[in-house]
Amino acid sequence: MTQLNENYLRLQGSYLFSTIAQRVRAYKEAHPQSPVISLGIGDVSQPLVPAVVEALRQASAEMGQIETFHGYGPEQGYEFLRQAIATHDYQARGIEITPDEIFVSDGAKSDVANFQELFSQESVVALQDPVYPVYLDTNVMAGRSGAFENGRFEKIVYLPCTEENGFVPQLPRQHVDIIYLCSPNNPTGATLTKEQLTAWVQYAQEHKSIILFDSAYEAYISQPQLPHSIFEIAGADQVAVEFRSFSKTAGFTGTRCAYTVVPKKVQLRDSIGNNKPLNALWLRRQTTKFNGVPYIIQRAAQAVYCVQGQAQIKKVIALYQQNAQVILQALREVGLTAFGGENAPYIWLKTPQGISSWEFFDLLLQKAQVVGTPGVGFGQCGEGYFRLTAFNTPSLTKQAAQRICSLKTL
Amino acid sequence: MTQLNENYLRLQGSYLFSTIAQRVRAYKEAHPQSPVISLGIGDVSQPLVPAVVEALRQASAEMGQIETFHGYGPEQGYEFLRQAIATHDYQARGIEITPDEIFVSDGAKSDVANFQELFSQESVVALQDPVYPVYLDTNVMAGRSGAFENGRFEKIVYLPCTEENGFVPQLPRQHVDIIYLCSPNNPTGATLTKEQLTAWVQYAQEHKSIILFDSAYEAYISQPQLPHSIFEIAGADQVAVEFRSFSKTAGFTGTRCAYTVVPKKVQLRDSIGNNKPLNALWLRRQTTKFNGVPYIIQRAAQAVYCVQGQAQIKKVIALYQQNAQVILQALREVGLTAFGGENAPYIWLKTPQGISSWEFFDLLLQKAQVVGTPGVGFGQCGEGYFRLTAFNTPSLTKQAAQRICSLKTL
Repeated sequence: MTQLNENYLRLQGSYLFSTIAQRVRAYKEAHPQSPVISLGIGDVSQPLVPAVVEALRQASAEMGQIETFHGYGPEQGYEFLRQAIATHDYQARGIEITPDEIFVSDGAKSDVANFQELFSQESVVALQDPVYPVYLDTNVMAGRSGAFENGRFEKIVYLPCTEENGFVPQLPRQHVDIIYLCSPNNPTGATLTKEQLTAWVQYAQEHKSIILFDSAYEAYISQPQLPHSIFEIAGADQVAVEFRSFSKTAGFTGTRCAYTVVPKKVQLRDSIGNNKPLNALWLRRQTTKFNGVPYIIQRAAQAVYCVQGQAQIKKVIALYQQNAQVILQALREVGLTAFGGENAPYIWLKTPQGISSWEFFDLLLQKAQVVGTPGVGFGQCGEGYFRLTAFNTPSLTKQAAQRICSLKTL
Repeated sequence: MTQLNENYLRLQGSYLFSTIAQRVRAYKEAHPQSPVISLGIGDVSQPLVPAVVEALRQASAEMGQIETFHGYGPEQGYEFLRQAIATHDYQARGIEITPDEIFVSDGAKSDVANFQELFSQESVVALQDPVYPVYLDTNVMAGRSGAFENGRFEKIVYLPCTEENGFVPQLPRQHVDIIYLCSPNNPTGATLTKEQLTAWVQYAQEHKSIILFDSAYEAYISQPQLPHSIFEIAGADQVAVEFRSFSKTAGFTGTRCAYTVVPKKVQLRDSIGNNKPLNALWLRRQTTKFNGVPYIIQRAAQAVYCVQGQAQIKKVIALYQQNAQVILQALREVGLTAFGGENAPYIWLKTPQGISSWEFFDLLLQKAQVVGTPGVGFGQCGEGYFRLTAFNTPSLTKQAAQRICSLKTL
């Protein structure tokens, strides 16, 4: 019988969200009179903004006329969108990124998941802990993890992010080849400063490593001195790749559009010491395994950058930022220690009296009928923490905050 | 410096379409008065049908209202679309496929490219020659090809498809693990009969192999006795996976929607002899590395199955089928031997007097200002053949046919 890729057998079951759903269901059945509010979801609640909906309407009409119909587009994305991204997200911030360094895709999840294919199987991977599980699972599937023992994969270099280090990963003492960084961070909400990020870029330059930088939540940064892009750091364009998404910036979670920036200066080497540009390798990967994002979706993403689009999405982001403040205030009112929420849509709270993530989950569900995500679901170092998100509606977020405040005894 | 996946270095440059573009450009510059017609493209010319455009319009409006907005959907695709596919494409033909065996995606190219990830690196791959290059290249990238020598990868089992065997691949004499079959075939236009397909299913049962069956062009089958799905063959649901697309069926080349059928009965084994269902492995792959197809695109695909949608797409397919007839007649009129075109949108012609594929390309461009694709670009066994497609407009297809007819001397 044909044999499977046995690396799949090493994957640790991702029962986090199904366990949450199960416990919520059981609670609801036992308490049909107590409506539950979820601050656990990473999905947005607000609809697409009018400029985007209008672009979808126009592009859909174009697809119905032979003169304006669009068939296969460039795998890398249409020039009109890559140019808008380069202009607004990079050149306007003084960063020199050109359209041929930008690859439009159906999601940062897909790109983050697929990018590791370009590296040798022997590459040593460093990950923050707690972490977005896709970084880890895709490297397990590719055979870079080694065995799983005592809650850790032997070949993965874990970078603990805890209250003690301000949720800022420390540079590894050993050599690593591939470094996943997420800032603003999911789940901790911590955001790296220019100085912290500079240290990582220097590490990567010294060790000739590659940084895979996930900045999907950069639109939530409110403090002006914080970097939105790793390419604000000198030299990063030789060592880093950046993943961005329209999901949280413009409510595209169900519309699917993202992009990845692969500067032309970043190089990998082969075993006899020749250099190969990463940009060309990723282009080869994408042209072979992907056929581009729908034309109408690319037109919708382009509309995010028009004057009305920018004004409209900024209002929605401000609404979610306000939600985060409402949650933070409620948590502090009941004496809980909470992090994040200032420059990120995620609030990372410390469970009271050192109770476990899951105990706090049950407590919050039963006493306040509020659902969040146990921190341990994101990694060992998430134990004793709990994630709440700012993406629900303002009205339900306020209700949830009031319920938390009324607990007093936390 | 971080090391690359060296399998990428084995990829043979895919210069086919860029070389074509270059030669056409040079011709146009030298002959600005002679408009060139392309029958080389695999892209469609007709717009989306009205039922699909209306679904896009409605779904886009839904996305702009909070009550009807859709965020993250199921990675596997919405139930409404998977149910429509199961009902119309399978159950209506007497095939028992259920919605949880269907995975909606952004393209058959992506699925065909990604599916090999589930198999061990040692799996032996068999491919038709000539072949759609994605099957080969993705296995090269994954390290299953071995070295490239004398135009062949040492570990790939090639299945020649030539005039001598009616373009029907013969069963391999050795054991193979993974078999890629495409019927109706791109590029030859040949379509496997039930008897021929049954032989392959029996081979797979005996050898415990997996058949990856690409039926992206099944809508072009005109002869009623020919199978549209491999699951029309008894036992195929234990050994086969089927890839389908809305690209050529409903003009979705720039709209991006496809699906893959992974029956629950298909199993792989691990190295100690345990069986694992392929369906669960693919679900794990897709939930980890993919975030689903845009809601509005899934609504558009669903509209393909409504009464008006079906009537409208059938008219478009009939138009392309008529184009194929026009091309076939012209080729036969000038004494050329041509295959395909009856049950496929591709016409595969034999070059006259044994001239090479590229010589014929130049001859057709210079004498008739018609562009096609040299067969050798699809593999060694494509040398001496040439592909024309039926996807241009009826008017340009007729003009191209007239030009071919006027040559007489071919």
